[in-house]
Amino acid sequence: MNTIEEKFLKLGIDNAPGQEVREGRGEERPADLGERLPGVAVDFSHGDVNATAFEPTPGALEAFVQGVHRGGSQAYTEYRGDAAIREKLARDLAAFSGRPVSGAEELILTPGTQSALFLAVASTVAAGDKVAIVQPDYFANRKLVEFMGAQMIPVQLDYLNGAGHAGLDLQQLESAFEQGAKVFLFSNPNNPTGAVYARSEIEQIAALAERFGATVIVDQLYSRLLYAGEPYVHLRGSSVAADNVVTIMGPSKTESLSGYRLGVAFGSPRILQRMEKLQAIVSLRAPGYCQAVLQTWFSEPAGWLAERIDKHQRIRDALLSVFRGIEGVAVRTPQAGSYLFPRLPELRTPLPAFVRALRLQANVTVTPGTEFSPHAGDSIRLNFSQNHEAAVAAVERIAAMVEKHRIS
Amino acid sequence: MNTIEEKFLKLGIDNAPGQEVREGRGEERPADLGERLPGVAVDFSHGDVNATAFEPTPGALEAFVQGVHRGGSQAYTEYRGDAAIREKLARDLAAFSGRPVSGAEELILTPGTQSALFLAVASTVAAGDKVAIVQPDYFANRKLVEFMGAQMIPVQLDYLNGAGHAGLDLQQLESAFEQGAKVFLFSNPNNPTGAVYARSEIEQIAALAERFGATVIVDQLYSRLLYAGEPYVHLRGSSVAADNVVTIMGPSKTESLSGYRLGVAFGSPRILQRMEKLQAIVSLRAPGYCQAVLQTWFSEPAGWLAERIDKHQRIRDALLSVFRGIEGVAVRTPQAGSYLFPRLPELRTPLPAFVRALRLQANVTVTPGTEFSPHAGDSIRLNFSQNHEAAVAAVERIAAMVEKHRIS
Repeated sequence: MNTIEEKFLKLGIDNAPGQEVREGRGEERPADLGERLPGVAVDFSHGDVNATAFEPTPGALEAFVQGVHRGGSQAYTEYRGDAAIREKLARDLAAFSGRPVSGAEELILTPGTQSALFLAVASTVAAGDKVAIVQPDYFANRKLVEFMGAQMIPVQLDYLNGAGHAGLDLQQLESAFEQGAKVFLFSNPNNPTGAVYARSEIEQIAALAERFGATVIVDQLYSRLLYAGEPYVHLRGSSVAADNVVTIMGPSKTESLSGYRLGVAFGSPRILQRMEKLQAIVSLRAPGYCQAVLQTWFSEPAGWLAERIDKHQRIRDALLSVFRGIEGVAVRTPQAGSYLFPRLPELRTPLPAFVRALRLQANVTVTPGTEFSPHAGDSIRLNFSQNHEAAVAAVERIAAMVEKHRIS
Repeated sequence: MNTIEEKFLKLGIDNAPGQEVREGRGEERPADLGERLPGVAVDFSHGDVNATAFEPTPGALEAFVQGVHRGGSQAYTEYRGDAAIREKLARDLAAFSGRPVSGAEELILTPGTQSALFLAVASTVAAGDKVAIVQPDYFANRKLVEFMGAQMIPVQLDYLNGAGHAGLDLQQLESAFEQGAKVFLFSNPNNPTGAVYARSEIEQIAALAERFGATVIVDQLYSRLLYAGEPYVHLRGSSVAADNVVTIMGPSKTESLSGYRLGVAFGSPRILQRMEKLQAIVSLRAPGYCQAVLQTWFSEPAGWLAERIDKHQRIRDALLSVFRGIEGVAVRTPQAGSYLFPRLPELRTPLPAFVRALRLQANVTVTPGTEFSPHAGDSIRLNFSQNHEAAVAAVERIAAMVEKHRIS
């Protein structure tokens, strides 16, 4: 077996969010499938951007159409994106993150946040390197590290016991750096748990990275969807060595603009320059006309963001209430974002089969916890950016299914 | 110096098409700049998609807007793209290429043709591998191979002497395979020369690949823009080992849809499956709403393509006539596509300075030949998908500049 084959053997996507339809091709209804639980289908693997749930930001399509009419200058931007849009976003992201951003040197537009993540990792991690990765965290982080031929050093997040902090094991992080990790990659708020790192945790991450000369890539995709009264500390505002920090964001979640494939990375000019070079051979640029939609980002109508957060908070609380009514479920209250990551009680059905039964029998799609951590085989992730009533009914069906499969 | 730094040192983009604006930041007008040659600015580094030149396919924007209104199902497609759109394109691409295509297993939608190329190379080439690359050919081919840590084995294209064929040195290709090249990557029509490979060349490429068990990636981006009376042979129609061929196309050139970032790759299910796995961590998917625009591809209004080809042919012939009026210029008549790659007479100014003078003094942007081959330091590439009159006037200014810089 040669190297390229080995490389791809590790890169499974069958259980990745959104791929259920593909997994389902030719899928036969199991003979032993129990009675169906009726209800509106809910796909918790990603947010619902339809009119009955959370539509894209007002004005997004209009900005796109204006971009098309602008013609060639919008279709063929620099590889790192349209200069005027970068200047606008640099101001917004500086205000948001509390540290100046140069639109010319410290910001790149990418085809989605996933691309920003790929470019950041590929620009800092070479084969044989060591990278510290949180468990649980966004499923692609681990796959990116493996694909680069690098070695992952896991750092546990004790999210179920983290009152007032996310629960990162900072001793494990220090140990990872001592073992030679050059890069630390993590999401804040954490995907899948919604945990937000406390000031003390961010400051210690920054201090450790500074001490060991390590690069930190922080995926802040959900950092705008912050619930009432929750503090949020930007790593780039705390870090001494700004040249070693790259922050990743995008308008695909809170703003429901995923269909336009837009992301940004900002920070270290040295790493950003590499990312631009790499983007030139990976995808050339973020979709030109779509870039124009970024003019609506951080410029939403007054009150729009507050209302969107409030609606999510009410769904969050309703779903938490159903989950906490299930005996043996443990679930953290997310401080930001739209993910829930409940730990289920012990079931007599293995997780993959239970997740499949949820889909086929209860019309509910969730993502198995094993996508996020090898230690989360008892957990499921839900993106609750959904229609409120449909989501509550779907979680009630999950509760009923847990009872059916519970070890009695 | 560590590996990642070395890797990026090789990955220059300063002279890449479309990056001139960035190179120009802070650029001072040279003191010795001669008199300006007045005229409408023409940027030959890429096609002009404005109304005065070649606008996007009719109905493209309408298809996009319908995609937005379709909502979540269009925003969140499978990683390899919307199933119904893949089925439609599979039929069209089968008819176009003369060999069946399975929409389910043999086709992937990507964010631009560049992404298709990246995914195909990254799915077949590992560090230490050898890859046969044509000189001259699309500038990213070489960079992709280098970025994978693979070794390029050049194969020369004698495009200036290729009457009735492209001019590939098939003995060099055979030798490359003998030396262990596992992959052969080339564009047909050739970028930058517009040469189309003859049936005999395609059949010999297929036979050699078959004999050595090598994979062939063929970039057919411009294969629809075929001039009157020119034959075109699809490698995938000739190749015995269909599992070793990936064809790449997209609607960004002939159809002027570059602003939507759309490409496709089709062929070997084994390689396509890897490409999908990789796309999951590189960009997730082609922009969801943009995918809807592919419904217009191969379904343009009657006569639209013929008219577009005819207009390009007339520009091609007008520019060739100006170039051939310059003493010492050699240029191949492109059989397809919208590139011209004239070899200039000997100048007293090195090519980079001459290209810069063209831009600053004559308002004409071209791409230096060295982006395509180390042996093309005397050539420039022009994308002539431009306003007819402006393009002719710009090439007349190039002619005047050649006279100013000619070794007398």
